[in-house]
Order: sequence, then structure tokens, then C-alpha cells
Amino acid sequence: MLEKLKSILVQVRDSVVRGDEPVYVIRKRSLSNVKRSEEAYLVLGDETITRRFLSVKEARKFMQTTAVLATIVKAIEEGDYPTIRDIYYTVKHTITYTTPSGERRQENTFDDQSESDEVIEDVELMSGILREEMGVMFDAKGRAVGKVRIRSKGYTVELDKMGVGAWAIPPNVDEIDILDVDAEFVLVVEKGAVFERLNNEEVWRKLRCVLVTGKGQPDRGTRRFVRRLSDEFKLPVYVLADADPYGAYIFSVYRYGSINLAHENPRLAVTSAKYLGVWISDIYRYRIPRNYIISATEYDLKRAKELLSYPWFSEDRRWRKELELFLERKQKVEIEALSGYGFKYLTEKYIPEKLSFKD
Amino acid sequence: MLEKLKSILVQVRDSVVRGDEPVYVIRKRSLSNVKRSEEAYLVLGDETITRRFLSVKEARKFMQTTAVLATIVKAIEEGDYPTIRDIYYTVKHTITYTTPSGERRQENTFDDQSESDEVIEDVELMSGILREEMGVMFDAKGRAVGKVRIRSKGYTVELDKMGVGAWAIPPNVDEIDILDVDAEFVLVVEKGAVFERLNNEEVWRKLRCVLVTGKGQPDRGTRRFVRRLSDEFKLPVYVLADADPYGAYIFSVYRYGSINLAHENPRLAVTSAKYLGVWISDIYRYRIPRNYIISATEYDLKRAKELLSYPWFSEDRRWRKELELFLERKQKVEIEALSGYGFKYLTEKYIPEKLSFKD
Repeated sequence: MLEKLKSILVQVRDSVVRGDEPVYVIRKRSLSNVKRSEEAYLVLGDETITRRFLSVKEARKFMQTTAVLATIVKAIEEGDYPTIRDIYYTVKHTITYTTPSGERRQENTFDDQSESDEVIEDVELMSGILREEMGVMFDAKGRAVGKVRIRSKGYTVELDKMGVGAWAIPPNVDEIDILDVDAEFVLVVEKGAVFERLNNEEVWRKLRCVLVTGKGQPDRGTRRFVRRLSDEFKLPVYVLADADPYGAYIFSVYRYGSINLAHENPRLAVTSAKYLGVWISDIYRYRIPRNYIISATEYDLKRAKELLSYPWFSEDRRWRKELELFLERKQKVEIEALSGYGFKYLTEKYIPEKLSFKD
Repeated sequence: MLEKLKSILVQVRDSVVRGDEPVYVIRKRSLSNVKRSEEAYLVLGDETITRRFLSVKEARKFMQTTAVLATIVKAIEEGDYPTIRDIYYTVKHTITYTTPSGERRQENTFDDQSESDEVIEDVELMSGILREEMGVMFDAKGRAVGKVRIRSKGYTVELDKMGVGAWAIPPNVDEIDILDVDAEFVLVVEKGAVFERLNNEEVWRKLRCVLVTGKGQPDRGTRRFVRRLSDEFKLPVYVLADADPYGAYIFSVYRYGSINLAHENPRLAVTSAKYLGVWISDIYRYRIPRNYIISATEYDLKRAKELLSYPWFSEDRRWRKELELFLERKQKVEIEALSGYGFKYLTEKYIPEKLSFKD
């Protein structure tokens, strides 16, 4: 890994030594260069951009790329685990210079963290190495529990022996070995509070599943962990989220990944993921009492239309119907609305019913 | 516990049977009824309010209290673990009634979750039982790692054997037994990303500490876990946060608790907590380079003034000087700014130096 990252810097140095213009060649990240692969997740196409040193427009970005790359190489060499924010602080400088006309000026190498975060993604693209593998840390949110044995840093961790707690999923999931799993599927729940509740009931034991939450929009660690359970143990993955466009979007992040980070999807998208519920149509099928139903906001409606503009929703008959139903009825419910039928309704009726429908 | 909760309902029923007006007597939650206890944390005083059934103003709140109390009792009897949102959905109804003049009207028992959350706190106050103990779940955020052995649900969990992951702190920390701890102190870090980074470096092993994060403002589970480590194993607690008023506030939540939830502080406030840094004065003592320094916003300044209005800040000479320095210089830095001196500066220089200063 270190060699791969260094070789990019060496190629730049060699260009300079030869008297050529140093450049970085990076795959283009834009909607026009996003394709759907056979497994129907989003992948980056082959179009590239060339980031030139001798271009007034690109010189700053060229410098940024070099600074971030060199910083990551140094961190790996020193056995360090910087956060994406650490990297920002390390590469952030103010350069004071004098213009040809004798004027003193100042310029920041980076103005804010979004600039360095984006360059870290460029480094991922150039090297084919994910930032987690480079030891770059971030604020990981995921939690998991179930009959899974993991090997990490010389220890065996048993995810069914966490008591009322759970295993906190790290950012760098590829540093662990998943030894074995005794479960029939993975149940991913959108909400942290629902996870705690199902964990206290030990639903994962009764349903023989691995229970995971990414707490809303999942981070890369959670997605990679679920993907590895799916790949390495052929487990189907079911996602339980609110019956609203945000819930649909959460599902799509697990299933298809995001457009913006399409280069990661071949390693993060969970192609086995199925939506368990709550479906918009469940509001009517399960006759959710009127006072648990929430009116859609303008933002919800806008979001639903946006989802319908993506082929992975509009070309899926079930999803298209659900989103159209949402736009027509303008109503949504949360997972917790099922508690209106009694606290155990979710775990003893809704989930088992949905699992047996396989709809 | 169940008996205690039921007795409150029984007392109401008995009043009705006797022909008396049923009432709930609840300790008053307001700044005027908050005192500082000897250990200098905030506790609720003895003033009470009486919530009457036969009062037009209070009848709705009386009904809400009864509904929430009955719902919690039912959940405990059924061995269930509802979330605070589940409870909201369970007690939320629309009542349709006809006025004496024959008009049909509708009213909601609860309009939004903040109403039921507040009533859950009233139930805590009346019963002296925390909602976690009643099995009421919420979205827990905390993570912990270090040489701690825990017993929960029949399993022994070793918090130093989580690999690159960590132990996810549950909402109901009192359901675990902390068997033993081999550490000299607890290091609480404000930020999740900094926690991941320190965990990857296994700083807790080198410094012989238990490493905890509450990810910003800590939830009750995280606070209770740190408190128990402090109480049961006499460990000093050090808090590492950003050098800004929000960092100071985070510290105060661990140390003193919040005004609003003063009734929980005798069980949640960590009286042994000391602020390790980053202090505002460290910006100048450590000569943090100018380009890592962030200008204070109007909101920061307002917050600093607010903190100075609390005696636990203004009567503490060190904190008063720090906050006054902040108001004078209007500058702040984040923990990560120390990375400007190299990634290991935080763990190999700053933290050990601060621990030996004991300032």
C-alpha cells in the first residue's frame, strides 16, 4: 500500500527531474461518469481528468493533492492514524508571497475541510486504496450484535457476548477477520434507538440474525461491515427504515451507494440488500391509525421526486409505485408507529410477517 | 421498581374511590429549585408542584402523566423495552368529544414527543427511578475501550479485547456489573473521530487508562458509565475537548450535569472530573500557529457569557480567567489543531504533559 501511494509521488518527482510538467491523472467524479454495473450498483466510469501543475486554474489543486498525499504517506510511515480533520490541520498553511509588482499577498493552502476531504477522495481514486485502509480515521457511528466471531489485533471478539451493550463498528473494518457467523440474515435498522430496543429484547437471538444499525445515513465502516457479512457468508440483508423518502434513501445508500462516492461502491454497496419495510403502502395495508400518520413536508415531496429521477428507483416497479403512492397521499409514518398496536407488534408480527412474505 | 411505579397509580385510584381529587406531587424543575450540593453538582431542591385533576389548566397534563405512567408499567409487566419515541406513539391519541353546546371537537392527548419526554422525566421525579432502569431505550452514542471487565446478561465482556472496534455503551448502564478495572484514570474525549484515532494507537494501553467518548454532548448512558468507573474504582476522570465555549460546556455536562435534568445529577454527575484541555490559554502557551486558530463567532461569545453567568464557572478562578481570555481574544482552536506539530504531538507530548502538570 505504501509503495503504491509513494509511486504516485515518485512519478511526479520524475517528471520534474526530466523537465516535464508534473500531472495527476484522476478518474472523473461526476454524474456523467457514473454507470450502473451488472450488479446494479453505481460505479465510476473510465473518464479521467488531468490535474496540471502548469495551469493557473489547476495549480492550487495540484499543490493540495501533493500535500495530502505526502501527509498520508508520512502518517503510514510513522504508524499513525490521523483523522480526516487532523489531515486538514496538517496541510493547512498560509503562504505569504510577493507579486512581481512588489505587492505582499497571503493565500491559504486550504480554506476549509471540505477541500482536503475531497482531495483524500482523489487519493483514493488514484491509488485504488480506500482511506480506511490508509489508516485515516473518522467518527464511526455503527453498532452490531449477533452470533459473529471476529479476530482483530490478536483478540477474538464474540458479538453475541456484549451484554446489554454492542460492538462499536470501527472505521477500518478491513483490519478485522470475520471468523464465523451463525445467523440466517442481517437485519439493518435505520434508527439507533430501535436497535437498542431490539438488542434488549435479544431479537437477534430469536430471529437468528445479525442486528446492525448505522444510525441514519450509514458511514463507510457500517456499510463495509454489512457488505462483508453479505459477501463472505452469503447472508441476505434486510433494511428496516421509516416509511418516508428518507428511509428509501437510507436503503439506497446501503444497496447502491452514493453518486458522489461511486468509486467506493464496488467495495461498499450491498447488492444483496432488500427493503423489509416500513413501506408507504404498509400505512394502508396495516391500517396504521390516523393519529400516527404524519403529513409529508414540501421537503419530503421534493426528495421523493428526486428519488424518482434515479433509474434505480424509477425502473424498479415496486419502488416506483411506492414513491408515486407517497406523492399522491402525502403521508408518512415512522417505524415506531407500529407500537400503536402494542410494543411487541414490530418484533412478533411485523418483522416475521415481512420476512415470510419476502416482498 | 414495578411496585413503586404502581403505587403512584394506586394512590390516584384510591383518591378517586374515596371521592377526593386525584393529584400528582412532583418536585419542581426550574432554576429557582436547583441547588448546588456539597460535591458542587446541581441537585433539585425540595419545592414541589401539585398536578391537579380538577383544574382546567392542569387536567391535560394530569391525563398525560397517567397515560405515560400506565404505559411504562405495562411495558415492564410485559418485559418490553420501548424507546422514548415508542412511548410517545403509544400514548398519542386523538380524542373526539362533543361540547355542552353540541359542537364536535377534536384534541390530541400529546402534540409532539417533547411533551411525552417531559412527562417521562416527571415519572422519574415521582418514583426516584431513572428511565433507563424502567427499561426505556434511547439512541445511545458512547464508546469505551480499556482494561475493564464487565458482566452483563450472563457474559463477561473484556473492553480491552474489542480489536479495532470498541464497546458500544448501552442506554441502561445500571444493568451491567463492572467486575474489575486495571487503569489509573478515565480519559474522556469529546470527539468520536479523536477516540477512533487514539483507540487505533492503543493509547489507553500506553497511558493505562479507560478511553471513553460521548461524541459531543454525552448521553445519559455515557455519563452513568463514567460516573460508575469513578465511584466504584476511585478513578480520576480527565476530559479532553476543544478550546472553545462548547468544549467547556461539554466538560460541565460531565462534571455538573444539566440544570434541566438536575434530578439525575446525583447519579450522573462525575464529581471527580477534571478538565485536561485544550484550554483557551493553551493557544498562547503552546504557540498554536496562527492559521490553526479560528475566530470566535457571535454565538461563541454569547455562549461564553452565558457560561460565566453560572456560578460553577464564574466562582472557579481558572475557568473564569479562561472564559475572560476567550472574550478578550475571541479565538478558539480544536483538539486537532495540535496535529500541526505532528500527528503524535497530542498523545506523546500534550496529554502526558497535561497529566503531569495536573493543572
